[in-house]
Amino acid sequence: VRLRELGVSIGRLEPGPFNAITDVAGVRVGHTTLIHDEPRIARTGVTVISPCDGQVWRRNLFAGWHRFNGYGEMTGVHLIDEVGLLNAPIALTNTHQVGVVRDAIVQYAARKGVLEGFLMPVVAETWDGALNDAEAFHLRAEHVFEALDRAAPGPVPEGSVGGGTGMRAHEYKAGIGTSSRLVDCGGDGFTVGVLVQANYGRRADLRIDGAPVGRRLMETQAPAGSDGSIIVVIATDAPLLPIQCRRLAQRATVGLARTGGVGRTGSGDLFLAFSTGNEIESGAESLGGLPSTETPPVSAVRMLHNPHLSVLFEAVAEATEEAILNSLTTSGPMTGFKGATAEALPLDQVREILKDYR
Amino acid sequence: VRLRELGVSIGRLEPGPFNAITDVAGVRVGHTTLIHDEPRIARTGVTVISPCDGQVWRRNLFAGWHRFNGYGEMTGVHLIDEVGLLNAPIALTNTHQVGVVRDAIVQYAARKGVLEGFLMPVVAETWDGALNDAEAFHLRAEHVFEALDRAAPGPVPEGSVGGGTGMRAHEYKAGIGTSSRLVDCGGDGFTVGVLVQANYGRRADLRIDGAPVGRRLMETQAPAGSDGSIIVVIATDAPLLPIQCRRLAQRATVGLARTGGVGRTGSGDLFLAFSTGNEIESGAESLGGLPSTETPPVSAVRMLHNPHLSVLFEAVAEATEEAILNSLTTSGPMTGFKGATAEALPLDQVREILKDYR
Amino acid sequence: VRLRELGVSIGRLEPGPFNAITDVAGVRVGHTTLIHDEPRIARTGVTVISPCDGQVWRRNLFAGWHRFNGYGEMTGVHLIDEVGLLNAPIALTNTHQVGVVRDAIVQYAARKGVLEGFLMPVVAETWDGALNDAEAFHLRAEHVFEALDRAAPGPVPEGSVGGGTGMRAHEYKAGIGTSSRLVDCGGDGFTVGVLVQANYGRRADLRIDGAPVGRRLMETQAPAGSDGSIIVVIATDAPLLPIQCRRLAQRATVGLARTGGVGRTGSGDLFLAFSTGNEIESGAESLGGLPSTETPPVSAVRMLHNPHLSVLFEAVAEATEEAILNSLTTSGPMTGFKGATAEALPLDQVREILKDYR
Amino acid sequence: VRLRELGVSIGRLEPGPFNAITDVAGVRVGHTTLIHDEPRIARTGVTVISPCDGQVWRRNLFAGWHRFNGYGEMTGVHLIDEVGLLNAPIALTNTHQVGVVRDAIVQYAARKGVLEGFLMPVVAETWDGALNDAEAFHLRAEHVFEALDRAAPGPVPEGSVGGGTGMRAHEYKAGIGTSSRLVDCGGDGFTVGVLVQANYGRRADLRIDGAPVGRRLMETQAPAGSDGSIIVVIATDAPLLPIQCRRLAQRATVGLARTGGVGRTGSGDLFLAFSTGNEIESGAESLGGLPSTETPPVSAVRMLHNPHLSVLFEAVAEATEEAILNSLTTSGPMTGFKGATAEALPLDQVREILKDYR
Repeated sequence: VRLRELGVSIGRLEPGPFNAITDVAGVRVGHTTLIHDEPRIARTGVTVISPCDGQVWRRNLFAGWHRFNGYGEMTGVHLIDEVGLLNAPIALTNTHQVGVVRDAIVQYAARKGVLEGFLMPVVAETWDGALNDAEAFHLRAEHVFEALDRAAPGPVPEGSVGGGTGMRAHEYKAGIGTSSRLVDCGGDGFTVGVLVQANYGRRADLRIDGAPVGRRLMETQAPAGSDGSIIVVIATDAPLLPIQCRRLAQRATVGLARTGGVGRTGSGDLFLAFSTGNEIESGAESLGGLPSTETPPVSAVRMLHNPHLSVLFEAVAEATEEAILNSLTTSGPMTGFKGATAEALPLDQVREILKDYR
Repeated sequence: VRLRELGVSIGRLEPGPFNAITDVAGVRVGHTTLIHDEPRIARTGVTVISPCDGQVWRRNLFAGWHRFNGYGEMTGVHLIDEVGLLNAPIALTNTHQVGVVRDAIVQYAARKGVLEGFLMPVVAETWDGALNDAEAFHLRAEHVFEALDRAAPGPVPEGSVGGGTGMRAHEYKAGIGTSSRLVDCGGDGFTVGVLVQANYGRRADLRIDGAPVGRRLMETQAPAGSDGSIIVVIATDAPLLPIQCRRLAQRATVGLARTGGVGRTGSGDLFLAFSTGNEIESGAESLGGLPSTETPPVSAVRMLHNPHLSVLFEAVAEATEEAILNSLTTSGPMTGFKGATAEALPLDQVREILKDYR
Repeated sequence: VRLRELGVSIGRLEPGPFNAITDVAGVRVGHTTLIHDEPRIARTGVTVISPCDGQVWRRNLFAGWHRFNGYGEMTGVHLIDEVGLLNAPIALTNTHQVGVVRDAIVQYAARKGVLEGFLMPVVAETWDGALNDAEAFHLRAEHVFEALDRAAPGPVPEGSVGGGTGMRAHEYKAGIGTSSRLVDCGGDGFTVGVLVQANYGRRADLRIDGAPVGRRLMETQAPAGSDGSIIVVIATDAPLLPIQCRRLAQRATVGLARTGGVGRTGSGDLFLAFSTGNEIESGAESLGGLPSTETPPVSAVRMLHNPHLSVLFEAVAEATEEAILNSLTTSGPMTGFKGATAEALPLDQVREILKDYR
Repeated sequence: VRLRELGVSIGRLEPGPFNAITDVAGVRVGHTTLIHDEPRIARTGVTVISPCDGQVWRRNLFAGWHRFNGYGEMTGVHLIDEVGLLNAPIALTNTHQVGVVRDAIVQYAARKGVLEGFLMPVVAETWDGALNDAEAFHLRAEHVFEALDRAAPGPVPEGSVGGGTGMRAHEYKAGIGTSSRLVDCGGDGFTVGVLVQANYGRRADLRIDGAPVGRRLMETQAPAGSDGSIIVVIATDAPLLPIQCRRLAQRATVGLARTGGVGRTGSGDLFLAFSTGNEIESGAESLGGLPSTETPPVSAVRMLHNPHLSVLFEAVAEATEEAILNSLTTSGPMTGFKGATAEALPLDQVREILKDYR
């Protein structure tokens, strides 16, 4: 059950048709989920976000990122800082599997014949080692290929799937969550979509639309003592320059803070934003930096003027908040490694608590 | 009236004796407030934060800063990024007066005989041009000297004083606000103090301890249509390295987001944190970078281990949220430039609204 | 005498007609120089760089900056980091005068009727306190207005003028220097111009086109023991996004390193680059971030593809190196505060040394 | 043959006994080199730098990094930015193999029983795809384990070994190079060691101690047209805070620029510096950020005062320049993938050219 099915919506803006990152045209999401107990316990996986209908290899997108907290990994950020371009699908997984996923994306491009020299894929992680036997290093390149092959538009499976399989947030079972918002910028309509892999936070700190749900739940539930990280990926079709994408990424902090995140010290809270509003042909940005003789040296790109960003910032804040909450409400309980259990968020109690505050 | 006098407290940590940045030993605050209508309308001023009992010139402190939104000015950040040291009092004022305040701090040091070569003072701003005739450029060096001379420990005047004189937040009269928190780190007790100059935000977005106060106030009040910035200064006696101070500064974002800030595009949201837990003799960091022959090349500094930072992060988030709210609750209404008026936050209505949510 | 009159040229690219930053169309430079001994000794001034034929207030430009070393000040960088726009003339001066220059630029805009709310001017500094009685705080707003009024295209006065009046580099008299390069990007021709205020470096480290001139000069000359900073401003008409301007700014490091700079600890080495290849109407970026109803929300901007940047990087490196050397070769000796003297670079000896190496 | 055997030394400071990064006590280097033609052509490998006598897992070190150019990958930088700690050996390899190396370091720690939760290893790359059949993805975890097992103090194999096996610089065969410098800071002696994986630069731009060797070589040799990246790792026993390590890392730019680097657009020039002068027990920085109850919350760390950094900056510049040149002079010619050949730097010609300039 998603948050809105509980009768709760976040913010003032309307979501898109799927209330998912896939509401941004061309964005596809695919999961590979590994859940088994033999030979070693697996509660892990990988989630890929594949823009441009899977053609981002050739149709590069402007992107930017933000670090709210750095006790984590997100590869590929140097290229984004330097040239502002995303040229491969994005993937989310468990901490120990960042490397295999990263190289697998390169291998996939080689198999598909779209690899021109090298790639710097963006792969980010949170830690599923409480429920998953992480030192089994379950994930293999084939699992990544599967997720890439399966990546699809439309509704996005949420909760304990893909990279989110073994994750917890606010000491409850969580994982993948998504949400979107429609915005109007001076008459032009755009979509902002967010997908999170949520694995952070204290139970006591959980808030839903401002209501101190965690504080109230703590009256009857003991703390589970965990902590962790969150990755937020933001997509929009608004035509943004790289510097503007970075600003969007930073606003994920607002949604996170409102839901109860404080960026505790052992947490890796890393956010990426990309815009499908301009496509840069990869031929214009060839390997080794040699200028193409076929592409004109100068091209026109579209830029949304900065004052219109404010509503996009609101959209990011709202959709991040709702995506996190969706990752909680869509996750059932899970038992895993060494018998550890993550409870589901007790939706009945939550409904009761929210009644008091609305 | 401060927030706690409304019966509201923020978070789980206890404030210090003054619930102010001055709860951090050695931190002094001084204001110069300019309010007059002739020859041109002044609703402006300057606030100084002077650590080390006014001796920061010689007893330099580790510091770090964070930019949540950059449509603003905070001078002196290059030195803090590069060597991590604060060597002059900090000042907050109106946008047009950043320069005069910056140079005046240098002149003050020269007059006091503590100027060794040059200084890179930290001066930050928000825009008071809605209530103040900013193009009159009211502030002079003498006003800065006065604020520095007056800087004192103990209770801190809040609201429409000093740099906050002409400021508004969430479309209500605001200005200077402060708060503090006491933390326990493995048996060691520390204090975190925050002072804000608040001038940001939409009415509709205001939240108090999560309650959607602004949304409810909008049912009876029209939007005033303004927007703006916020400066947050954080002090602690916990012994932090520069890199740790930066992390503290970044957590002001959490308090800001919870109160309803989203970092709208025309806003300058800049945060500074310093630690009084280590003092570096200025002789060790002499002008032009020539090594002192009197100071040993290596000295010991104290460092709080990172896992203990989490509670300091909570303290920053809580105290920032409460300092912003104090800046609102302590400000009366004000009429200024061209007859513009900023209403005070309607405390009776706020009390009623909060009753529904607690 | 400029470097090329010594028979030395730097690099492989051709300079523009003035071999100056003003070779970039629309860029104007103006100096105010204060040299007097009564009542207190002045060897200081201010230099302004005014793009868009003086109309940058309304025709904003994309810009980026880089910090090679942060023991210095450059105001206005937050806005450039956040929105990538330059909206006021740039100024260079002495460390103690950054504030008065900054506010004076705002005041000038107010007087000219082009001030819409606030500005975040870029003002940078190096320290002239060895030759100038810096604690006299000589500069006043009027001096800045003069420099702005005088700003002109064409040949740029170099050496002991404007902000460079009291500066030294590699322990010789230096100050303002400039140079330019013409580049071809896939058939499109662009210009890169550089202006430096040079005040850094050890005598022993000076190199001219790689030749260890300083090392050889040290055989007959004692070290003068000073150290300091350098500011580099880069202009180009190539159409660059903000992220690309930042890359250009960073390449000033290459020219500095080749001339003998190492970024010693007490040095402030800050670089700014802007592109005149796109002009953003200030109406599209109005005060307080409210969207304009008259400007369409999306506009087209031109972008040079990244592979073509390499030749611009070379141009920046070459022109920075030559601009620094011009600041030395155009400066005569100067006696100033407390009788301190800065020798001129001994050009005859330099000629002899270079003969050995070419 | 190393550079000094050609009779050339760089700079004024003395190298340590091995003139290698291993002159910093406790630093070990290990290579695995893959050179074979069947079944697919391999000219690749991995180099590890293992501080603290291989015990960095438990004895974490302060570190900092710098990006001169971002068209490349260096994992693990988020943790270094956020907490300033290095907690795993560093590895250098080919671009396509970053992932396998990264995960293998984690697996190695697991096998050795030193893995407490997760690690964020620093793995950096340059592109060997001109000589190596990179799409064969040759490297496996076992190769990384071997390099870690072999890591040793003392002389460091240079040239076409380890991660440098298939690399070229200035269009000649290059690879791994190393150098060191001894510095005196107010009576305290420290060592700075540098190791590079060099794969960047145009032939025409190569300089040796300032002499335009590349320009002269071009008179008889055609350009080979390649371009690429460089990774620089800096070690020192000087007790530096993280913020100071970052400054050291940035100074690698100076050595690179002097040797002829300009940071061309398709290049990834990423620099890492760490200090062995403080060891932080990993217990103080435990997984998930929970405070240890066994470690006191505050500890003393040693800090070199900033003015003493200048000589360390010189040491970094000199040793980087010499390490790059060593990577060239120690590399023989190599033929590889698709018959591509990289010539060795023609040492006899270089000797002749240098004679003219000294």
